[in-house]
Amino acid sequence: MHTLEDQVMLYSKNHPPLLSLTPGPVPVYPQVLHAMSRPVLYDYDDPYQALYSRLIDKLQVALRSRGRPMILQGEPVLALQAAAASLIAPGDKVLNLVSGPYGKGFADWVRRADADLLEIEVPDNQAIDPQSVADFLTKHPDITVVAVCHHETPCGTINPINEIGALVAAHGAHFIVDAVSSFAGMDTHPDDCHAAIYVTGPAKCLGAPPALSIVAVGKMGWKKIEANPTAPRNSVLSLLDWKQAGQNERKFPFTTSIADINGLDAALDLYLEEGPQQVWHRHCLTASAFRAGVAAMGLSIWALNEKIASPTTTVVRLPSGIADTDLIALMRSRYGVLVSAGRGPTAGKAIRVGHMGPAAHPLHAISALVALADGLSMLGNEIAIGDVIQVAMRVINQST
Amino acid sequence: MHTLEDQVMLYSKNHPPLLSLTPGPVPVYPQVLHAMSRPVLYDYDDPYQALYSRLIDKLQVALRSRGRPMILQGEPVLALQAAAASLIAPGDKVLNLVSGPYGKGFADWVRRADADLLEIEVPDNQAIDPQSVADFLTKHPDITVVAVCHHETPCGTINPINEIGALVAAHGAHFIVDAVSSFAGMDTHPDDCHAAIYVTGPAKCLGAPPALSIVAVGKMGWKKIEANPTAPRNSVLSLLDWKQAGQNERKFPFTTSIADINGLDAALDLYLEEGPQQVWHRHCLTASAFRAGVAAMGLSIWALNEKIASPTTTVVRLPSGIADTDLIALMRSRYGVLVSAGRGPTAGKAIRVGHMGPAAHPLHAISALVALADGLSMLGNEIAIGDVIQVAMRVINQST
Amino acid sequence: MHTLEDQVMLYSKNHPPLLSLTPGPVPVYPQVLHAMSRPVLYDYDDPYQALYSRLIDKLQVALRSRGRPMILQGEPVLALQAAAASLIAPGDKVLNLVSGPYGKGFADWVRRADADLLEIEVPDNQAIDPQSVADFLTKHPDITVVAVCHHETPCGTINPINEIGALVAAHGAHFIVDAVSSFAGMDTHPDDCHAAIYVTGPAKCLGAPPALSIVAVGKMGWKKIEANPTAPRNSVLSLLDWKQAGQNERKFPFTTSIADINGLDAALDLYLEEGPQQVWHRHCLTASAFRAGVAAMGLSIWALNEKIASPTTTVVRLPSGIADTDLIALMRSRYGVLVSAGRGPTAGKAIRVGHMGPAAHPLHAISALVALADGLSMLGNEIAIGDVIQVAMRVINQST
Amino acid sequence: MHTLEDQVMLYSKNHPPLLSLTPGPVPVYPQVLHAMSRPVLYDYDDPYQALYSRLIDKLQVALRSRGRPMILQGEPVLALQAAAASLIAPGDKVLNLVSGPYGKGFADWVRRADADLLEIEVPDNQAIDPQSVADFLTKHPDITVVAVCHHETPCGTINPINEIGALVAAHGAHFIVDAVSSFAGMDTHPDDCHAAIYVTGPAKCLGAPPALSIVAVGKMGWKKIEANPTAPRNSVLSLLDWKQAGQNERKFPFTTSIADINGLDAALDLYLEEGPQQVWHRHCLTASAFRAGVAAMGLSIWALNEKIASPTTTVVRLPSGIADTDLIALMRSRYGVLVSAGRGPTAGKAIRVGHMGPAAHPLHAISALVALADGLSMLGNEIAIGDVIQVAMRVINQST
Repeated sequence: MHTLEDQVMLYSKNHPPLLSLTPGPVPVYPQVLHAMSRPVLYDYDDPYQALYSRLIDKLQVALRSRGRPMILQGEPVLALQAAAASLIAPGDKVLNLVSGPYGKGFADWVRRADADLLEIEVPDNQAIDPQSVADFLTKHPDITVVAVCHHETPCGTINPINEIGALVAAHGAHFIVDAVSSFAGMDTHPDDCHAAIYVTGPAKCLGAPPALSIVAVGKMGWKKIEANPTAPRNSVLSLLDWKQAGQNERKFPFTTSIADINGLDAALDLYLEEGPQQVWHRHCLTASAFRAGVAAMGLSIWALNEKIASPTTTVVRLPSGIADTDLIALMRSRYGVLVSAGRGPTAGKAIRVGHMGPAAHPLHAISALVALADGLSMLGNEIAIGDVIQVAMRVINQST
Repeated sequence: MHTLEDQVMLYSKNHPPLLSLTPGPVPVYPQVLHAMSRPVLYDYDDPYQALYSRLIDKLQVALRSRGRPMILQGEPVLALQAAAASLIAPGDKVLNLVSGPYGKGFADWVRRADADLLEIEVPDNQAIDPQSVADFLTKHPDITVVAVCHHETPCGTINPINEIGALVAAHGAHFIVDAVSSFAGMDTHPDDCHAAIYVTGPAKCLGAPPALSIVAVGKMGWKKIEANPTAPRNSVLSLLDWKQAGQNERKFPFTTSIADINGLDAALDLYLEEGPQQVWHRHCLTASAFRAGVAAMGLSIWALNEKIASPTTTVVRLPSGIADTDLIALMRSRYGVLVSAGRGPTAGKAIRVGHMGPAAHPLHAISALVALADGLSMLGNEIAIGDVIQVAMRVINQST
Repeated sequence: MHTLEDQVMLYSKNHPPLLSLTPGPVPVYPQVLHAMSRPVLYDYDDPYQALYSRLIDKLQVALRSRGRPMILQGEPVLALQAAAASLIAPGDKVLNLVSGPYGKGFADWVRRADADLLEIEVPDNQAIDPQSVADFLTKHPDITVVAVCHHETPCGTINPINEIGALVAAHGAHFIVDAVSSFAGMDTHPDDCHAAIYVTGPAKCLGAPPALSIVAVGKMGWKKIEANPTAPRNSVLSLLDWKQAGQNERKFPFTTSIADINGLDAALDLYLEEGPQQVWHRHCLTASAFRAGVAAMGLSIWALNEKIASPTTTVVRLPSGIADTDLIALMRSRYGVLVSAGRGPTAGKAIRVGHMGPAAHPLHAISALVALADGLSMLGNEIAIGDVIQVAMRVINQST
Repeated sequence: MHTLEDQVMLYSKNHPPLLSLTPGPVPVYPQVLHAMSRPVLYDYDDPYQALYSRLIDKLQVALRSRGRPMILQGEPVLALQAAAASLIAPGDKVLNLVSGPYGKGFADWVRRADADLLEIEVPDNQAIDPQSVADFLTKHPDITVVAVCHHETPCGTINPINEIGALVAAHGAHFIVDAVSSFAGMDTHPDDCHAAIYVTGPAKCLGAPPALSIVAVGKMGWKKIEANPTAPRNSVLSLLDWKQAGQNERKFPFTTSIADINGLDAALDLYLEEGPQQVWHRHCLTASAFRAGVAAMGLSIWALNEKIASPTTTVVRLPSGIADTDLIALMRSRYGVLVSAGRGPTAGKAIRVGHMGPAAHPLHAISALVALADGLSMLGNEIAIGDVIQVAMRVINQST
């Protein structure tokens, strides 16, 4: 006799999912996975030095930054903590912009730097309004640092960092930007938003493995870090030390993560060859089609409106009576589609569907809708899937 | 017309070396490299959770530790800094044992913890004498923490950590051990040396890629960390946060380095299948044969005597008039054998030959001797290679 | 200014397709691809001999054959030609059953063996009727060999080989079965159909790379081959020589294709671990859902009726006015879905959609329908996609 | 208690050898192994067609042939049989040149073509003398085809194919050349020896996996094949059919071995980038150094003299009282070096050491000598290894 689970199961939970649509780490592009098994080179040897140097070149092209970007051998949470520790000095007045848990969490590192913490906080389904920042800066002319999370992955919302960055620059303050889950999925670059420090990572829209972070520090940023008496040295939190990592003349004994470096290298090749515009278009189109389908199901997304909805992650509110764990399990066990639970404010109230890197294709939006509608139907929330798909495909058609 | 370099070159510097005998990162075992291209799983999904949990099991078997070891997503320098930051509290009295640059460098992190720093320092070609530690502890009964680097890779010397650890335990102090380049290459385990915190890594004797660190914290260690008011939280330096990494219930958003995790997993399988005893024997025999050949060349090793010479790295003093860069370049360009320059005290005065993981085979000791003798001869320091090989092979034969 | 092609293109033709739904070679399972980069072992060395022997064991389990199966180092066309050359002797009376181009092509090898050729031929959208075989055998009691292609991939039709095989066995004749694109996608095994020689391959429903063929020869089959004075020897067409390939004691210098052997090995592990019943169910369900959607579009399949429609390939007749090349190009360039053109009788008149190995999942049936409906709509043949998906999903739901 | 085997064993027989020095299949270059796990493309799709076409371009550059070479999906024994079957017509008078078992074996395929077989045969440690061919052709003006094996791998001897080819061309006959284990290891190309058909493979000096053969057919060759009424068609033995394999317009349903194709592609890149001259030099130098060491051991090679000794394989005669199986097992179990047993005339009388592809490095010649001397010493045949290495290294030094 079969249990209910067996009766409805089409796809084994022991197999990797057929389609992984999480908000990262994403399943890497096949070419990236392939690159990760290149032979492991010794990091002081010429062939590796040449590869690493070419990688930084490509990274600079992708980031469109005037300065030379850095790679830290650790996921972006390391880079963000190091950014706070390196840039913020005791006595700094820091405006932390909060529209979700990642923004909120940054405050902790500000406090640790013995800086003065100020915050603008909006509800977690909204975005920071540049006007509020302008007003705040006028009221607090001594603010020296502003920090923001570009894309709050737990909420699927995007903050207008270019507008905010222009205000910060005009104010003469330093801007720290967490662009971990937005860079390479939409039109965002460190210099466009006047970032002093801009942090991103390979395991989201670049479709590469986790384990590294990418940091662009502007000229003004370096100046402030070098002048900061509390900027760490001989530390994994030292951006000054990391600047030399991967180079023969390095003083601090960082070893680079060679497989991950190879993966990032291949991911940048793909990104630049396909063309950033085309990659962003894929992300945008996939998210648009998915949101249209979600609306056609009578569901709503977490973000207050389409304008601030992320092109790289959609957070879908659960209809009442539906448990996220049941829905996620059904989507995986019937159609092999893996999506994520909510996190922080959205935990238990929403599911999250990533449209990042290799997942950013209209076909995968359709697949996500199919699995979602099926899962809801199995849980008693009947969905007319035909109409949903029709709506989503209309969005796709109109884009072309 | 050829330049001198072309005339003597047999092996292209654009190719990866034929044989990489550095003290790490080592060229990984073929099976490990192969494992690194396994599909990238989503870290919250069941198949990954199962893999990760089995990996920690294997690690515990390999470490022979009572407690459950942890993996940090960063190379061991992160783990060592985190160990210092997490364990050492303001007011602690720390005895730092120094026999080379890694030991020396640890002092910086002790100071940062606002602890009282005391040191025993020996010349960089010698090892710490347990008797001196016993005497010191007697004289300073209020010492709460002792720190040591087991194998000073820059010098090729080994400290007697089991003897020292017994003294530290009897004293009631906490022992921090850096076993990065010794574990899995010789008979050393955290509980054998009564370590409160024992740090090692995958990219040395385990023959896996860098990018991770392995940490075993004893019961007493956890107790002290939990009681430490300055132990970091919400930080990459927090051992308390790292304890939950890779688990579904984690609070801090660490993402694991999946390719590197796959590589470590395969490396542990190899280590346990071959049998630790046999792996240590390979390391020991390779180093012994190499040292015998070095002696037969009329050269000397850095370590004061054979007893403290490392089974995982041999540091060979350069004869006068020989530049390390010339010698290293010749060994690579003629026989494709890559060795390392000295570091710290040995920089410019010695070359370093690793016998780690896949490099720990008697055949590679012979190859290293061949390339070394040839390089020296090319530089005018004629070596009777025949005798050298004969001596080395005699050592190998006697072992069997 | 954009051309029409640019306007409608969403997916680059320079990238591998997002989803390859051809009737083989199929994109291999990720685990199989991964296995193909295992280190290349020397074929006479013990580790390889052990691997090869275990592989033949697994193959025998998968084929459920009393005898030990063989692997030929060449795709199945080699095996089929070798089967004809080895089994059929001058003077044999061979009944060749023809329901499509593969069946038809076999006749050539019968003639080459100086045998007497008789044929039953049905239209290429039909299957052989066992009754017609029974009648034919009664009328021609001297028939010694019967040959059939189980699944005519160009037509998507299945012949009832178990029923036919029982008749052939009762008649005392030898049965040659081409099960290349059916084995592992449905319930078919050499002994179930009394095959003297049963040929299949790894690059269809097993989801492994091409380059090999799998051959099961029954006891009676070997007897006839050994008695055949014209059976080749010292030849790639000699089944007698191939019997020894991969073994140390082999006489003829066949070298095995090690990467492909590794791939087949991993594919058999997957097949046996998932369970053959479950694998067949996946194939069947995917094809059923796809056919239902095709019918809902108002299109028809090539096969005369559902009963003979293949669970591993669906051949869809093109509506009038639609060119296959246009439709295939649109499906690929808009949704990244690759399907195949017709072949032989179906060339220019149909497209072929494979449901083999990793492609045999209900989600992929939906994706194929989405891309097909979109392509037809773009070509002016408007399809109400919503209804199509609804119908297909109903089929999937009913199965669970 | 340990057995003798355990006492002397340093290297597990369950592990792949540390160094595989067989006369093929060789352990492939790391870059080639890596290429073999590229995603499997569908063979009719554009990206694959482009890759295949570029591969044939590279092959033509490597072969330096006027005509377009072909790839057959089967190891070279298939190509050689196909060459005989396609070129030789009933009534042809074929001169088969025999200096070892591969040459001898070709006769069988000549007879099968109903041709008239004539032979020049020399002892298996000698090479064909061009003068004897000249005399023979004068005596038999009606000879239409001449066949030869360039490198008899079982014997380690090389035939002078360029000189012979010039005679054959002057005579107006067609020359079939088996260059399987010589091409890419020395200066040999199809047009240099006026070959009508020239067969080689990837698994020897190119350092790629087995499973394919490479065939260059000259203009005259194609003319004769097209005029040959018995040239096979619809057959794996048909060079005419193979000509179209891998192309969209192919008529016969050959599927290419994609992983092997990817491997060959990477191997050709390596060959052309390193430069053929340099690759041949490596092979030659490795073999010379090894032979010098063998002579210094007081052993002799199978080849009658150095002039005909192969640069890609050395066949070493066993001293009396030494069993090949014992010696091979010891070399593998103590130093991890795998060499091959003799074959045909050399079976039981010699061991064979390959210097092919990645094995063609002077360092590996030294390693082979070390393992060989050690093995002989263990079997009671004491060798003064020091002198042996000294002699070999002198040869290496003189080359630079």
